[in-house]
Amino acid sequence: MSFDRTPLMRRLGGAVPEEELELFDSLGRIGKKYAIGHDLGEECRADESIMILQHGWTMTYKILRGGDRQVIDVNLPGDVLGMRQILFNYDDYRIEPITEVFAQKLPADIILRSLGKSPEIAAQVMWAMMSDSAFSPERLVSMGRREAPKRVAHFLLELGARLDRVHLSNKNGYLCPLSQTDLGDILGMSAVHVNRVLRDLRERDLLTFRIGKVKFHDREELNRYAEFEPSYMERRLH
Amino acid sequence: MSFDRTPLMRRLGGAVPEEELELFDSLGRIGKKYAIGHDLGEECRADESIMILQHGWTMTYKILRGGDRQVIDVNLPGDVLGMRQILFNYDDYRIEPITEVFAQKLPADIILRSLGKSPEIAAQVMWAMMSDSAFSPERLVSMGRREAPKRVAHFLLELGARLDRVHLSNKNGYLCPLSQTDLGDILGMSAVHVNRVLRDLRERDLLTFRIGKVKFHDREELNRYAEFEPSYMERRLH
Repeated sequence: MSFDRTPLMRRLGGAVPEEELELFDSLGRIGKKYAIGHDLGEECRADESIMILQHGWTMTYKILRGGDRQVIDVNLPGDVLGMRQILFNYDDYRIEPITEVFAQKLPADIILRSLGKSPEIAAQVMWAMMSDSAFSPERLVSMGRREAPKRVAHFLLELGARLDRVHLSNKNGYLCPLSQTDLGDILGMSAVHVNRVLRDLRERDLLTFRIGKVKFHDREELNRYAEFEPSYMERRLH
Repeated sequence: MSFDRTPLMRRLGGAVPEEELELFDSLGRIGKKYAIGHDLGEECRADESIMILQHGWTMTYKILRGGDRQVIDVNLPGDVLGMRQILFNYDDYRIEPITEVFAQKLPADIILRSLGKSPEIAAQVMWAMMSDSAFSPERLVSMGRREAPKRVAHFLLELGARLDRVHLSNKNGYLCPLSQTDLGDILGMSAVHVNRVLRDLRERDLLTFRIGKVKFHDREELNRYAEFEPSYMERRLH
């Protein structure tokens, strides 16, 4: 089956029985390209659908009255988008591709019905849904209580670990379409502050953030420095 | 049926058909008291259970290496606790009562099986699960891009709106067991800063935060000031 090589299947790993994977297989064959700037959140709301991101990155963000932007989530291949838009009234949150993306739209109803297949499938789907926002708790910790260089390092390590799960990174780094302004809007910092922090991290030989690329100089050391413990991203077995 | 007067049922409102409510009714009759300081997260992990909080408040938090604390969630009567602890390895997050609490423990498996009853039940349960962390997105916005007085006001209004849903507030305020130190650890501020901001909000005749009590002087005006739009907390119908 070719479907088990999609990013979502790489994330779900071997935990779902083979025959039940076919349910997902049958759901999501037909995908579509979406351009930078298209609001995928509106797309989900309008059709009561969620989306599985197959290729490319998106950002979920809100613009405040004064014009400031706060990014809520950065989503990567294999992530499920839009569940929050369907369940809650987050009408002022946009989900926007930051590269061209390829995504499959699925009626939310099908996902909700799939929860009834078995408790194991239900746990998997719940896990997949919640892990799109599972990155917020540690981001709250970062924004509340981590000094700026550790905050930036922790976030870039977290992205690396998420990309590891879908085989889009190696231990030395990954391709990354985020700008320094994006990083600031994710982590609650000004672009100038981000720039200073990135220079500091590079000069301390910890990491390099260049256009299109994140390079870890010594990932072990960086994990220790940023107190990054990737275990919170793993699914517990039961 | 007396069960529909529990906080969870008040939250679920009339959206679940009467006969299906009986599923939940049958699950959660037996509850237990837990004292301040008890780790409910460990309780959930050990038994692969979730908890429905019936009475009292809890905080989910993490202590960093340097001793700083960041609060992830404040949970109120009617909230579902522990799903994140069961699905992910958040072993360094504690869920602690900040008042004496009364909670019902349910095997997670029963909840996962309940998802199969109908898509409508599944949507309700997903909503209830996700709304325990649905407060993080706006908290990220606050911590990233709202100035301190608006951040504090927004959070206290959000608590008010959550308490409204379970009939534990009125339009002028609510009883609140949080300290100024707690507020700081929730919003990423020092206790001294929180104190200054609360004085400022009181002097501007917007709100009073006293031991045990939050009082809104003019809730409409406060909503405008903090850009608080409670619609994001409501469940969308489908």
